[in-house]
Amino acid sequence: MHIHGGDIYSRKIRMDFSANLNFLGMPESVAQAACQGVLMSEHYPDVHCRELRSAIAARDHVDSQWILCGNGAADLIYSLVLAEKPRKAVVCCPTFHEYEQALETVGCDICWVMLEKEEDFRYTERILEAITPDTDLLVLCNPNNPTGQILPTELRDCLLERCRICHTRFLLDECFVDFLPNREENTAVNLLEAFPELIILKAFTKLYAMAGLRLGYALCTDQSLIRRMQEVSQPWNVSLPAQQAGVAACGESEYVKKYRRLLAVERERLRNAFEERGARVYGSQANYIFFQSREDLGEQLLKQGILIRDCSNYRGLGPGYFRTAVRGEDENRELIRSLDRLGNLAGTVE
Amino acid sequence: MHIHGGDIYSRKIRMDFSANLNFLGMPESVAQAACQGVLMSEHYPDVHCRELRSAIAARDHVDSQWILCGNGAADLIYSLVLAEKPRKAVVCCPTFHEYEQALETVGCDICWVMLEKEEDFRYTERILEAITPDTDLLVLCNPNNPTGQILPTELRDCLLERCRICHTRFLLDECFVDFLPNREENTAVNLLEAFPELIILKAFTKLYAMAGLRLGYALCTDQSLIRRMQEVSQPWNVSLPAQQAGVAACGESEYVKKYRRLLAVERERLRNAFEERGARVYGSQANYIFFQSREDLGEQLLKQGILIRDCSNYRGLGPGYFRTAVRGEDENRELIRSLDRLGNLAGTVE
Repeated sequence: MHIHGGDIYSRKIRMDFSANLNFLGMPESVAQAACQGVLMSEHYPDVHCRELRSAIAARDHVDSQWILCGNGAADLIYSLVLAEKPRKAVVCCPTFHEYEQALETVGCDICWVMLEKEEDFRYTERILEAITPDTDLLVLCNPNNPTGQILPTELRDCLLERCRICHTRFLLDECFVDFLPNREENTAVNLLEAFPELIILKAFTKLYAMAGLRLGYALCTDQSLIRRMQEVSQPWNVSLPAQQAGVAACGESEYVKKYRRLLAVERERLRNAFEERGARVYGSQANYIFFQSREDLGEQLLKQGILIRDCSNYRGLGPGYFRTAVRGEDENRELIRSLDRLGNLAGTVE
Repeated sequence: MHIHGGDIYSRKIRMDFSANLNFLGMPESVAQAACQGVLMSEHYPDVHCRELRSAIAARDHVDSQWILCGNGAADLIYSLVLAEKPRKAVVCCPTFHEYEQALETVGCDICWVMLEKEEDFRYTERILEAITPDTDLLVLCNPNNPTGQILPTELRDCLLERCRICHTRFLLDECFVDFLPNREENTAVNLLEAFPELIILKAFTKLYAMAGLRLGYALCTDQSLIRRMQEVSQPWNVSLPAQQAGVAACGESEYVKKYRRLLAVERERLRNAFEERGARVYGSQANYIFFQSREDLGEQLLKQGILIRDCSNYRGLGPGYFRTAVRGEDENRELIRSLDRLGNLAGTVE
């Protein structure tokens, strides 16, 4: 079983930098709404998530018909794969492990596009070349997890055109797009109508620090796909607390603005701290930083009660790669103090 | 999309008899634990559900290794089907719709065993005859939903032997077994060790009135199956509020005892009321009553703000079949008064 970040249950953790969640914590209104949802939970949840979809539609300026909610974004990866049963998919690596795991459930043949260290793990035109008329599905994560690199908009537009020509479904995971400084430019939501092949994945988990409640959604204008995704999953997959929390979260625009302001400062602080101490930082566009360092860094920090994401178990990576969440000022300063106790962070560079 | 019971969101409902939930409502300790879970939900849930599985193991007297938790019992039906990818399954009908829907996602060929009205929709030896060496999966619901009939223990034992010989996986859905007067005799939990083919499904949803929180589990001694089921679903499928609520629910034995006492009385009250008014009651072993009546009964009760489960959309049934939950005394008396306004309930009997 692939070990993900966020496992604070296996050992004693003082500070968790392994999960990329909003460091302001869950908004009070969201917690209250979720508890209201608990009290309503003597009933089954609304299988159509009507109130929640209306709230998302208003916030994201999309048609509520385009929205399919799930038990976290990961749930929707499985629904899509099961609905489409792709025989051949193009996936980059390293990237989020669940794409591969979901594709394996239907025996899909994966054509891997390696993101190269020499190219700072950037997305390049090699992805475009990998898509052929027999490609059923393209999966991309923007910004990519764990590398923190962005899909350039020119490349994205070429990929969309290529997918249209090749009749390739395009799953674009934008679970971290809201953390980008220029997210309006980077999101493809405004291209949904022009490209019915496109399905965008989004999460409440990270932006509203509600990972334990499980809520994500997909956006797609292809109604037949939405229907087929519904048919391959149970009708009650989104809990009542999650639905209520999601509605409340849609009203928290000031909280999100505040978080973005703080994030910009803290991201720089951590990035500089790692670089100054000899780590090689690759991507840091979202709310996490991806870097190469001495191989024992994770182990050494754990001794101080700090959990970062050891990325050695990602396909395409190996020992010495790490991802750390950007947390609030106090936690970040404490992390930096812990780094100072370790001396130079430079890893063995092959 | 199949319309299930419990949809109180599409129209104005005063009393919901369409979902079979504990009429005492969610225990206070469960609601409190779920709200605690909300406050902890800034973290991801424990992907291994360790605390919850320990609590279930202690309550059910099983090994915690045999337990796999899911986002409601329905979630586990899909995991099992995706893990096993059966080519041929034996399923009775009428029964819970999600078996069929899950099996369709992997293109499984279903051999239907019709439960006959002339046999009061009882389980008979015809199921045994349907299982052949090329049967990959047998699915049975005990007591059956919606018919309320029990699987006789002699037949169950023969089915287990037959499945062993034919190498057939046996999914036994016991989501309603705790509502039976003689549940110890009817559950197959004590047969798990002897039959690794057997996988039992159980829910917290109904017994603890926590349908909106989503929590179910599977029991199986075949560790390879449990592992494969984990591999075909996302690691965070059980929310933190659901995990916390489940732990609290495991301590609510007095509440369950009290419910059983009241249920026995109320079940008789409703059963008699329906029969005295001309309805033909088939099964009423669990916390719901399955009967045949005039075809407009659902519609007429809805005019009075009462929702019962119209069973005409079940495979193997048609207009005039209904299922009603057994609720508390006040609600049941009010239902009966509403029935009285409608006169004779006798349906057209072909």
